[in-house]
Amino acid sequence: MLDLVIKNIGELVIVPRGPIGGRSMHEVATISQAALVVQDGRIAWFGPETNLESPRECHTVDAKGGCIIPGLIDCHTHTVFAGTREGEFVKRLQGKAYAQIAEEGGGIRVSVEAVRGASCEALIELTLPRLQRMLLGGVTTVEIKSGYGLTVDDELKMLEAVARLKSFQPIELVGTYLAAHTTPREFADRPDAYLDLILDDTVLSRVRDENLAEFCDVFCERTAFSVEQSRRVLETAKRYNLRPKLHADQITQIGASILAGEVGAISADHLETIHDAGIAALAKAGSVAVLLPACSFFLGVEQAPARRMLEANLPVAIATDYNPGSSMVESLPLTLGIACTQMKMTPTEVLVAATANAAAAIDRHDTVGAIEVGMQADLLVLDVPNHHRWMYELGRNCVRLVIKKGEVVVGEA
Amino acid sequence: MLDLVIKNIGELVIVPRGPIGGRSMHEVATISQAALVVQDGRIAWFGPETNLESPRECHTVDAKGGCIIPGLIDCHTHTVFAGTREGEFVKRLQGKAYAQIAEEGGGIRVSVEAVRGASCEALIELTLPRLQRMLLGGVTTVEIKSGYGLTVDDELKMLEAVARLKSFQPIELVGTYLAAHTTPREFADRPDAYLDLILDDTVLSRVRDENLAEFCDVFCERTAFSVEQSRRVLETAKRYNLRPKLHADQITQIGASILAGEVGAISADHLETIHDAGIAALAKAGSVAVLLPACSFFLGVEQAPARRMLEANLPVAIATDYNPGSSMVESLPLTLGIACTQMKMTPTEVLVAATANAAAAIDRHDTVGAIEVGMQADLLVLDVPNHHRWMYELGRNCVRLVIKKGEVVVGEA
Repeated sequence: MLDLVIKNIGELVIVPRGPIGGRSMHEVATISQAALVVQDGRIAWFGPETNLESPRECHTVDAKGGCIIPGLIDCHTHTVFAGTREGEFVKRLQGKAYAQIAEEGGGIRVSVEAVRGASCEALIELTLPRLQRMLLGGVTTVEIKSGYGLTVDDELKMLEAVARLKSFQPIELVGTYLAAHTTPREFADRPDAYLDLILDDTVLSRVRDENLAEFCDVFCERTAFSVEQSRRVLETAKRYNLRPKLHADQITQIGASILAGEVGAISADHLETIHDAGIAALAKAGSVAVLLPACSFFLGVEQAPARRMLEANLPVAIATDYNPGSSMVESLPLTLGIACTQMKMTPTEVLVAATANAAAAIDRHDTVGAIEVGMQADLLVLDVPNHHRWMYELGRNCVRLVIKKGEVVVGEA
Repeated sequence: MLDLVIKNIGELVIVPRGPIGGRSMHEVATISQAALVVQDGRIAWFGPETNLESPRECHTVDAKGGCIIPGLIDCHTHTVFAGTREGEFVKRLQGKAYAQIAEEGGGIRVSVEAVRGASCEALIELTLPRLQRMLLGGVTTVEIKSGYGLTVDDELKMLEAVARLKSFQPIELVGTYLAAHTTPREFADRPDAYLDLILDDTVLSRVRDENLAEFCDVFCERTAFSVEQSRRVLETAKRYNLRPKLHADQITQIGASILAGEVGAISADHLETIHDAGIAALAKAGSVAVLLPACSFFLGVEQAPARRMLEANLPVAIATDYNPGSSMVESLPLTLGIACTQMKMTPTEVLVAATANAAAAIDRHDTVGAIEVGMQADLLVLDVPNHHRWMYELGRNCVRLVIKKGEVVVGEA
């Protein structure tokens, strides 16, 4: 592979390796009139362009005065799904409650039936254009959860789709086993029997042995799984090297973030109703707080208290939560714009949240999400001169080039 | 011009001519498996495809089962501007008040200095790519205000840029004279002397005679112009056939919407703090209520009470308010998504708000914004099967073809 040299960088944003606590944003530095060298798909050097010693044979990219940031990481998504739920979207806008929508045949059940009815190939075909559009917006790594199958076979089919999609397109994919998304109808009133099934040794061994997932997630909520059920799921999965994640404190406060701390979750996600004890629990456990502002925006409800978590020095990550029910938003940059304007996070804070800290939330912080020598060269060349402008131009795609592992995969270099 | 026949329309949304009151959304109908015929740039026929009698020579467009809606109309923008204000954006996110930002050299003054320093040609060059991107999102008519010149020459230069841009690109442009945007520094404590200048007979005669604007707007607000000053501006401009518009009730309630009714404003815009008396005044005068949800979103403040206005049967329009200070959002579809999720408007209501009612806000309702025989053929072919899906897929550009005056100007037909 030829070396790649990027010149004429208006602002190089040096995001350090994550996790980065909310009080450490000063660790993010910038260099103007910078250059960057990539060797063997990794960052080999960066600094003021005047100090650049070009390798002999190299491919040169002109950043045209644009800003360079790390490739974005969407660390919480449900990108593999089938069917759409726009009817439910309209009913909600008209004031109908989720319970009533579910009674009228809407809700997650619609997605479950569509996914059960789709083959693995059909799921791949539906997901591929979504990933292609995400890439155009600068997303180079995506976590994808199962959770719409709700049978062993259908959950594994979803993870299989994620695994196979890795070879079809340049985005790096990370699978998460979320069979405990909700109790399927067939087990209505017998959630523990459903958990017996999805936590069976043969199932979890297969997930581990075929590398179908790296994480196990559970929806810990009054309407889904209790704290004790969630603990059982996550402690069992740990024995198969599936690291715990939680959908925590989204709608009601039942102690899910406390549980996240107790099980040593790599991340606790949602956190709209988190309290101080939950924040302390995450801080103590070193968990990443993954916030999903597009979900609250899509539902028209309160945002998570991002500033309180940043002030408590938690590492805060932001993801789209892209899914057909509560967050039909596939754009991570738009999600970051929502975080700026609705949660009062700064462009620097949301950049860290979607790179270094998002990487930490999926255990990739030693390879991606940072601009450090030795890190994988996942980089975006923006058509704006600084990363403040990138968020300020809300809703416009400012990405000119996407570089994945040192190769230009979007745009003309 | 060859006739154009569009076949295989999954959903044709028949938006009637505006203005359409908030209680009349049932007047919007849909036809599935529809076709539409364009003759001489106008809608000549539409109905179920089985009833279609094709003209002999025609250009056929396959809608591929997609939805067809009228071209979008952005009826309140400041699209002609120079300079950017991302530093101010970041300061505001950090909690600084506008007064302090202005004291530190930020605020509207930055845009005024940049516009004064730019030639008409430079303004055209800056604005053209903005319009091109708006067109890609389906916007076929745009109103643009002056208001960053704040001298007679610079205000006319801005309107001149709007006028000249009409021939450079397909979007239909409508100019509005907003010299009374704020009092310029040179007239610090002498706002009336500034008004004398911009309301001078030679100036307004020129605006009228050279067709530089169709409307006169004023920022009626405690920090800008009082109700009596605003009345003077609008009553004077009326004598030159410039119809009144108002920036009303945005930050404080000083009776601007009442004034809008009294002067017979074609529209009252913003309305975040409107009260029942203001709503009654607009209803009585037949003014369109132009809401700007991207502005409230960008500033992170309360939205206008859209549902109250819809329930009072006002015709509600929605626009981007695209400007470098308070709404750096150039996407009208995104703005409509904000209106859905944050104001609880339905996809049908926002569609009417950005077509029939936006047309009424700029006196174009007899030519654009509706799907009726005889109306100008400004149409969008979407890649989604219904207009609910268009809003549900929040942040994704669903436009496959843009047709302006019967000609395909975006996409491959």
